[in-house]
Amino acid sequence: MTDSNSAADPTPPPPSAPLDRLKAPARAHFEDLRDRICGAFEALEDDHAGPLVDRPAGRFRRTPWHREGGGGGVMALMHGRVFEKVGVNVSTVHGTFSEEFRARIPGAAADGRFWASGVSLVAHLQSPKVPAVHMNLRHIVTTRAWFGGGADLTPMVPDAADTAAFHAALKAACEAHAPGDYPRFKAWCDDYFFLKHRDEARGVGGIFFDNLEDEPEATFAFVQAVGEAFLAAYPAIVRRHFDSPWTDAERAHQLQRRGRYVEFNLLYDRGTQFGLMTGGNVEAILMSLPPLAAWP
Amino acid sequence: MTDSNSAADPTPPPPSAPLDRLKAPARAHFEDLRDRICGAFEALEDDHAGPLVDRPAGRFRRTPWHREGGGGGVMALMHGRVFEKVGVNVSTVHGTFSEEFRARIPGAAADGRFWASGVSLVAHLQSPKVPAVHMNLRHIVTTRAWFGGGADLTPMVPDAADTAAFHAALKAACEAHAPGDYPRFKAWCDDYFFLKHRDEARGVGGIFFDNLEDEPEATFAFVQAVGEAFLAAYPAIVRRHFDSPWTDAERAHQLQRRGRYVEFNLLYDRGTQFGLMTGGNVEAILMSLPPLAAWP
Repeated sequence: MTDSNSAADPTPPPPSAPLDRLKAPARAHFEDLRDRICGAFEALEDDHAGPLVDRPAGRFRRTPWHREGGGGGVMALMHGRVFEKVGVNVSTVHGTFSEEFRARIPGAAADGRFWASGVSLVAHLQSPKVPAVHMNLRHIVTTRAWFGGGADLTPMVPDAADTAAFHAALKAACEAHAPGDYPRFKAWCDDYFFLKHRDEARGVGGIFFDNLEDEPEATFAFVQAVGEAFLAAYPAIVRRHFDSPWTDAERAHQLQRRGRYVEFNLLYDRGTQFGLMTGGNVEAILMSLPPLAAWP
Repeated sequence: MTDSNSAADPTPPPPSAPLDRLKAPARAHFEDLRDRICGAFEALEDDHAGPLVDRPAGRFRRTPWHREGGGGGVMALMHGRVFEKVGVNVSTVHGTFSEEFRARIPGAAADGRFWASGVSLVAHLQSPKVPAVHMNLRHIVTTRAWFGGGADLTPMVPDAADTAAFHAALKAACEAHAPGDYPRFKAWCDDYFFLKHRDEARGVGGIFFDNLEDEPEATFAFVQAVGEAFLAAYPAIVRRHFDSPWTDAERAHQLQRRGRYVEFNLLYDRGTQFGLMTGGNVEAILMSLPPLAAWP
């Protein structure tokens, strides 16, 4: 979570049992999910036998960072032979929103203190045949407490089976837990990850949700299920394609599509803009940008 | 000029001799300057004898476009052996600003009709030893009339002689014409082309000016002098370096610096954001983005 203002008052909100009770479990879950995702991605590096196999299997490197104002996080970054660049960030921060932002944050208008924890992931693959992917889960507590998150797939050349498998996994997670609402969260994702200036979608979507504050325990279970769905679906998509060779033309197309990804993240993504404008950790925020992108 | 709203009323403002008298000369000058810049850049392609000399000398391709709402422009784009990607756009558009934008445009609050003409250039070079460059000159007429523009240099590895020569030419243009104010316009440029989130300048600066509406004839002469200064200074900088070989490490550094250029243009550049959000010509606006950029 980088969308937090580095405020003068680092005092966390006072204990408030009903709102605080999922803080520790959420944080622990996000960190555990990070560990399992990193493990699954390193296993893909190990198991790879296709193009670039002469390179060493990639390994994540972790870099902790501290936030002025309270809390911090750990960036995990890997440059591998399957994953050209993948970043998985976890962070748990607290502080006080500035007057400027309070009105925009649920429950912060009168009392700007906040706590936020999350896991955020963006993967850019070596192969143009393997989709890029984004996943984020977060829990935020002000005088209210809510969950948000989502996952979306960005293939360079859409593949119907990949799209169907990714959506099916997320749909199942939604249907297994009361707060899940696949049609609504899918539409929300399509609406959010859209490049208005080009009149085109960033990818083939997924789900996006925010401000889920009713039934906290059920919502937390839903959030956990989204992480599990990601972990079940995405590595399988990578395995379907990672041994296939690609052409220079496919690589050029991939770099051009990555340019669109950059355009989205810098022009539209609220977390990116909010984080950069409020003094967040630049390296962590911009870890989402691709290793190489083209505007031919 | 792409920062114009595609409005319903395409009627140009009524003739108003004092405000309109520089429209035709300004447009003619911008188009003539474009021709001479393209000629000078093609001459650099011809004269080049260094790395990549086995490739053909680049030539500009021109693509006209029309703006819904009034006017249009011509994109000139070259991919060469010296210029990896250079775009020179001229446009002359007219229309009516939406209510939303009127308050932000001088002289448009009560009457949203406008006319705007300009030339805009961004060059990304093959060689990491040759600086990237940006230049823009524009004349805008609402119920007021003014000039704006500037030029700034973005070396990958700053070279004191290049920086001095570029600034000296712009300083001389400022000092030769009354509206020119080199210290003020240099500071304005340093302030504008600054990446706040990284606390770093985009390059080594130049000049930037806007809303110059006093003494229109003298201001137009100044604007012309800025174009001449660019034409005298920049090709000479290219010639100083274009035959020098470079290393893979220098190329990698160049691609990373270009990533910063992308960040500036998408996060901060008012013309880019305004143009994209108001339905401008996307290809012309984003012609400024580099052919290849890296976020390693």
